[in-house]
Amino acid sequence: MFRNMLENVRKNCPLIHNITNYVTVNDCANILLACGASPIMADDKEEVAEITAICSGLNINIGTLNNRTIESMLIAGKRANDLNHPIVLDPVGCGASKLRTETAMKLIKEIKFTVIRGNISEIKTLAFGSGTTKGVDADIADKITEENLDNVIDFAKAFAEKTGAIIAITGAIDIITDNRKTYCVRNGHPMMSSVTGTGCQLSAMTAAFVAANSEHASEAVAAAVSAMGYAGETAYKRLTKTDGNSTYGNYIIDAIYNMTPEMLEKGANYEVR
Amino acid sequence: MFRNMLENVRKNCPLIHNITNYVTVNDCANILLACGASPIMADDKEEVAEITAICSGLNINIGTLNNRTIESMLIAGKRANDLNHPIVLDPVGCGASKLRTETAMKLIKEIKFTVIRGNISEIKTLAFGSGTTKGVDADIADKITEENLDNVIDFAKAFAEKTGAIIAITGAIDIITDNRKTYCVRNGHPMMSSVTGTGCQLSAMTAAFVAANSEHASEAVAAAVSAMGYAGETAYKRLTKTDGNSTYGNYIIDAIYNMTPEMLEKGANYEVR
Amino acid sequence: MFRNMLENVRKNCPLIHNITNYVTVNDCANILLACGASPIMADDKEEVAEITAICSGLNINIGTLNNRTIESMLIAGKRANDLNHPIVLDPVGCGASKLRTETAMKLIKEIKFTVIRGNISEIKTLAFGSGTTKGVDADIADKITEENLDNVIDFAKAFAEKTGAIIAITGAIDIITDNRKTYCVRNGHPMMSSVTGTGCQLSAMTAAFVAANSEHASEAVAAAVSAMGYAGETAYKRLTKTDGNSTYGNYIIDAIYNMTPEMLEKGANYEVR
Repeated sequence: MFRNMLENVRKNCPLIHNITNYVTVNDCANILLACGASPIMADDKEEVAEITAICSGLNINIGTLNNRTIESMLIAGKRANDLNHPIVLDPVGCGASKLRTETAMKLIKEIKFTVIRGNISEIKTLAFGSGTTKGVDADIADKITEENLDNVIDFAKAFAEKTGAIIAITGAIDIITDNRKTYCVRNGHPMMSSVTGTGCQLSAMTAAFVAANSEHASEAVAAAVSAMGYAGETAYKRLTKTDGNSTYGNYIIDAIYNMTPEMLEKGANYEVR
Repeated sequence: MFRNMLENVRKNCPLIHNITNYVTVNDCANILLACGASPIMADDKEEVAEITAICSGLNINIGTLNNRTIESMLIAGKRANDLNHPIVLDPVGCGASKLRTETAMKLIKEIKFTVIRGNISEIKTLAFGSGTTKGVDADIADKITEENLDNVIDFAKAFAEKTGAIIAITGAIDIITDNRKTYCVRNGHPMMSSVTGTGCQLSAMTAAFVAANSEHASEAVAAAVSAMGYAGETAYKRLTKTDGNSTYGNYIIDAIYNMTPEMLEKGANYEVR
Repeated sequence: MFRNMLENVRKNCPLIHNITNYVTVNDCANILLACGASPIMADDKEEVAEITAICSGLNINIGTLNNRTIESMLIAGKRANDLNHPIVLDPVGCGASKLRTETAMKLIKEIKFTVIRGNISEIKTLAFGSGTTKGVDADIADKITEENLDNVIDFAKAFAEKTGAIIAITGAIDIITDNRKTYCVRNGHPMMSSVTGTGCQLSAMTAAFVAANSEHASEAVAAAVSAMGYAGETAYKRLTKTDGNSTYGNYIIDAIYNMTPEMLEKGANYEVR
């Protein structure tokens, strides 16, 4: 039950090591605190192995990657693998440049990820080696709808099987699968796409959920995805007509902060296939 | 009409490539989303040419420049020039260090900018090769007033002619000129200077306005400047007595999010000379 | 009197050079503006000496250090020492990795700091060369309580004597000492630890307070610590039941913005030992 997933984050307060972009890093730190976890950001190759060793989970996000941080991602990822720590990959903008595509592919080749979370265009690029990512947003042609849902699930399951990772494809409908069990989550609000970094925040939070629920990793990912979407719904209800995307972004983090396990259990909107 | 400028941003949703500082980058991303554009931040030399190619506009901001990102700025700028994409330069702190002054001068020598936007001290330094910038704020002696307005306009026009760029000098009164036509914008609120990065945000948004209105670049810049100032006025009106600069910053972005083309048309306070 | 300390920041508007982490840098800039100072962020070795020379104070924070910025910290610190500018060190995560511990120790060896501000675990690590920092938070075993307060004060005084710096150990009770005079500050609210970067913000603000009150450095540090804690109390009172840590973070900065010298004088909760 999703309730337990959040409960365990609050109980265990996992320390999460983030190697992430400088655009949304502050929100990633605050959402980790909001859900009950602790953030640490460190990206120098001389310290990442040590930092990741004192943490319970690692979140790798390629949003503003560069040669210096790519090396650190590989070092941290390998160390986390050695220690059996859960690792989340957020392949931001995979498909938008060769550097991003090749880095993401190198990462999944050299590191065993627990979770790979991205939009459909990013995940397709990662699976097929090329794609049509429009910057950091999903291509409209790739959009997940009720019509193509079954196809996307099949694709996600195949990619989960190939990588051994839980695949989380987020969009209007979110798909989480470990190949055996698949969750379709229908929480969220369209306005979330007008706030920068809701995906990055979800990846950070996913690392916390998986770190605190290692025996139930798939369910933990689904719970994190559902919590983020439900926070988007809750936050939307608070908005007055003069509020915009900036206030909305704050309210989403606030909603995670105030979300009890019971609220998540009740607010979660998903089916298992 | 400014109305059309904003309308076209909302219609075209231009993807804007930002090579910008890590201080205000999150707000730059959110204000781009607020006005209807999409942000992508990428600063590694191995990907900037490709990233800028999939975008409609480029925003270069030297706020926390370093040798690695300076090289990327030059690569991205040249590629954008080749593709005829609009480019905005925000010479943050030009005059505060040799590195900033020389980098900004090198950038305008090697790249043809569509717009150069800064405070009066930064633009003077850029034009004369030396100046009195106080950190990232304009020197008080440089302040634009009704008394020296004509002189500043003459200076801006001469610099526009020399560089071939639209010059946007922002302050209590904003001057936008392409040498032929000059806009004086009187929107804004003094409290905006207590929020970090309102200038950076304006530069990012200016790139979006110019990208979506390439046939009317000067008017697009004036509309962006006016929209930012008007958002500052709108946001100020929402403040309660316990609100301060942090809430004000959020409300400014909110105001852009909620600004309709009609509201901008009505709220814009400018004259053409 | 703390009142005068804040008054002088507002009067002198000190320009503060920050070499700081990319996680909380935006909040550091906004809190500096909120208290009446001006921020500039610059971390390239080619410009830091020049930038620090035009400023009145320097704030060095090792939150996301790397080899490039460590070199810049040393250059800037030495230049600030030459110019007799006050310097604050925030040894974020000292103890969490060898790189952080060694860098912090190298910094205090090669640079004379005016103030060293951190949590008890960070300061202990710095004093003893090893410690038990849990990421960027203090170890629970290190927690300052009424019971161990005298011991912690003795430790802080000894470290102040050894380093010649004012030591500010912040936590549930804050200790500020220059070895001769010790302030115990009891402002603040537990929820402040759920907002990322309140420590970083305090360090930035401390640099401003010391820069504007160089004749009364210890009292200036105590006033800054008290102002931050009091802002946490004020902000907490504004919260509605749907507000969380994100809104709380904004309100803390807002509270600094609206804090008059008289309010600080009245709200400050401290004793001198």
